[in-house]
Amino acid sequence: MEDRLRSLIASIEPVDCHLDEKIQAHLDNLTKPKGSLGRLEELAKRYALIKDSTWPELPAGKSVVVFAADHGVTEEGVSAFPKEVTFQMVRNFLAGGAGINVLARHAGAKVKVVDIGVDHDFPDLENLISRKVAYGTRNMVRQPALTTKEAVDAILAGADIAKAEFPEGTGLLATGEMGIGNTTAASAITAVLCARSPREVTGRGTGIAEDAYRHKIKVIEKALENRQPDPENPLDVLAKVGGLEIAGICGLILGAASRKIPVVIDGFISTAGAVVAKALVPHVTDYLFAGHLSVEAGHKAQMEFLGLRPLLDLDMRLGEGTGAVLAMGLIEAGIKIYREMATFDGARVSPGNEEPVRS
Amino acid sequence: MEDRLRSLIASIEPVDCHLDEKIQAHLDNLTKPKGSLGRLEELAKRYALIKDSTWPELPAGKSVVVFAADHGVTEEGVSAFPKEVTFQMVRNFLAGGAGINVLARHAGAKVKVVDIGVDHDFPDLENLISRKVAYGTRNMVRQPALTTKEAVDAILAGADIAKAEFPEGTGLLATGEMGIGNTTAASAITAVLCARSPREVTGRGTGIAEDAYRHKIKVIEKALENRQPDPENPLDVLAKVGGLEIAGICGLILGAASRKIPVVIDGFISTAGAVVAKALVPHVTDYLFAGHLSVEAGHKAQMEFLGLRPLLDLDMRLGEGTGAVLAMGLIEAGIKIYREMATFDGARVSPGNEEPVRS
Repeated sequence: MEDRLRSLIASIEPVDCHLDEKIQAHLDNLTKPKGSLGRLEELAKRYALIKDSTWPELPAGKSVVVFAADHGVTEEGVSAFPKEVTFQMVRNFLAGGAGINVLARHAGAKVKVVDIGVDHDFPDLENLISRKVAYGTRNMVRQPALTTKEAVDAILAGADIAKAEFPEGTGLLATGEMGIGNTTAASAITAVLCARSPREVTGRGTGIAEDAYRHKIKVIEKALENRQPDPENPLDVLAKVGGLEIAGICGLILGAASRKIPVVIDGFISTAGAVVAKALVPHVTDYLFAGHLSVEAGHKAQMEFLGLRPLLDLDMRLGEGTGAVLAMGLIEAGIKIYREMATFDGARVSPGNEEPVRS
Repeated sequence: MEDRLRSLIASIEPVDCHLDEKIQAHLDNLTKPKGSLGRLEELAKRYALIKDSTWPELPAGKSVVVFAADHGVTEEGVSAFPKEVTFQMVRNFLAGGAGINVLARHAGAKVKVVDIGVDHDFPDLENLISRKVAYGTRNMVRQPALTTKEAVDAILAGADIAKAEFPEGTGLLATGEMGIGNTTAASAITAVLCARSPREVTGRGTGIAEDAYRHKIKVIEKALENRQPDPENPLDVLAKVGGLEIAGICGLILGAASRKIPVVIDGFISTAGAVVAKALVPHVTDYLFAGHLSVEAGHKAQMEFLGLRPLLDLDMRLGEGTGAVLAMGLIEAGIKIYREMATFDGARVSPGNEEPVRS
């Protein structure tokens, strides 16, 4: 394994839980029945533990990083959209008109767009972070999608972005992506690393009809048969049947975790990146929040693999980071509960009891 | 039935869906695969239909109305908290330190607190809306909780608030409540109007232990046996085993619907108010959004009765309106998607197809 990747992996520490009791005691002293704010309390606690603080600040500098790349496997006819939509949507992101732009503004988060592998030469565009590793992947049915070096370069590009673009003390990041054909790559990765059949973890992506869906499953089966990715070697899987944006997301997660910045992951593609990250560093999930449950068939299997429970379930399947930024608002709500609610003493409210009170 | 209630009911029109196709066409022309923003698209469409507009404004004047009242049934020992917590929490709401204050600020919503039946004389407090119908309910095990006149007065007080406190064009309201003992009343109402056994729709409220929980079910069974509320007569049910805050919420919903203001309902108690409202005016649900699914056992049965699907599922059971204001952010996100996303034409993005594209 490349030295830089090895040292990145070594730099990620598990979250230290020594403040757990103090944080829980504060939550239990707020003017509400114990635990009655459910997952908002869980979010506050996890955030405080990651920040290693009994008094975490509200997340500063919230941002979503959208990695864009193309996929050679679109030659096989796996998507409802033509390949040029990848670069067209990058322009749309930069112009502020895509779903992720709207929802990031709603969440108070910035959108950073990264060309990590789009099959298009962009002019020098303001706001586009150019980290192109290749002009897309090769067709995984016919040859490995990436060389191992390309896969590692894309991971390191993602990790670099986590370090170069975000100052010390950044509160919260989210992952997003754009890449026509990338549900095919995400399904292939998920099948191998989560040990499921392609059929179980393949969905309709942007919305293909029944025949096309059956064809897509066959394409993935053929790619796995031809490539024989090694389930014990996440880099081999990522290279042979993955994608550059998926590798970039994996790298962003690793880079953020190495700096103790929590990351909200989005839907099926983003989570494929998280699956690779966990396969490389099991405790990286300490730093992850699962933004939402995607409609895409394989997302549940990924969540089980990661041991995460999604925050939202709104029948979404757009990607781009849309579900992740929407969930940022819930994480912030949890932190505000922790910081802003009155305590029983402070508000002179009588505390409760498991035994009923006759009054 | 009282004349004013009769005319309130008559003034509520079903939502007119003649703009459905135009609204859907706009959603389908936004730069995303059709339907890929799932429930955000559904929220935008429902909101636009309620406002009878193909270009709905962002909701102005968002507010949560928190009705507070006491319950005579606390004599039976059904709650983990003493009765005085009702007025103590009203003070906490007015001081801005409760969960609902924190989450309403997060959502950009105002908190209006209504004393509709607290067993306490408040001094003249700024921001407290005083509409006290009685000093709490009577103990439903021994006598009817309310007279029919008190129940109707409380409904009309809620409807008055919808009209007096909110100007024309108010975008979105939410319901909230506070009342030690009110899960007992909500379970009794739900058992009768949703035709379930008390056991099925009774939970642990603020968090009572196993023995107390079994006792609470027996209290509800005894109250229903002693009172014999008529399932065909929602006012009879509300009076005999209900609560003043539940009646107020029912009235707020009816008053808002009569002015075409959508209402986000909160958890188990708020939804009991909505169940009574629907039993009085079946199409009132056209104006309702279900904020979240509460942990409280009977909430699912209420949702089935209303035909609504909750937006959030975060293991919450605090009430106060907390789940409702949290969901306001999702409804706003949907409206922003509708208003702010670029169209395929405008952004020069190639539209998709159910048939796959080989590229």
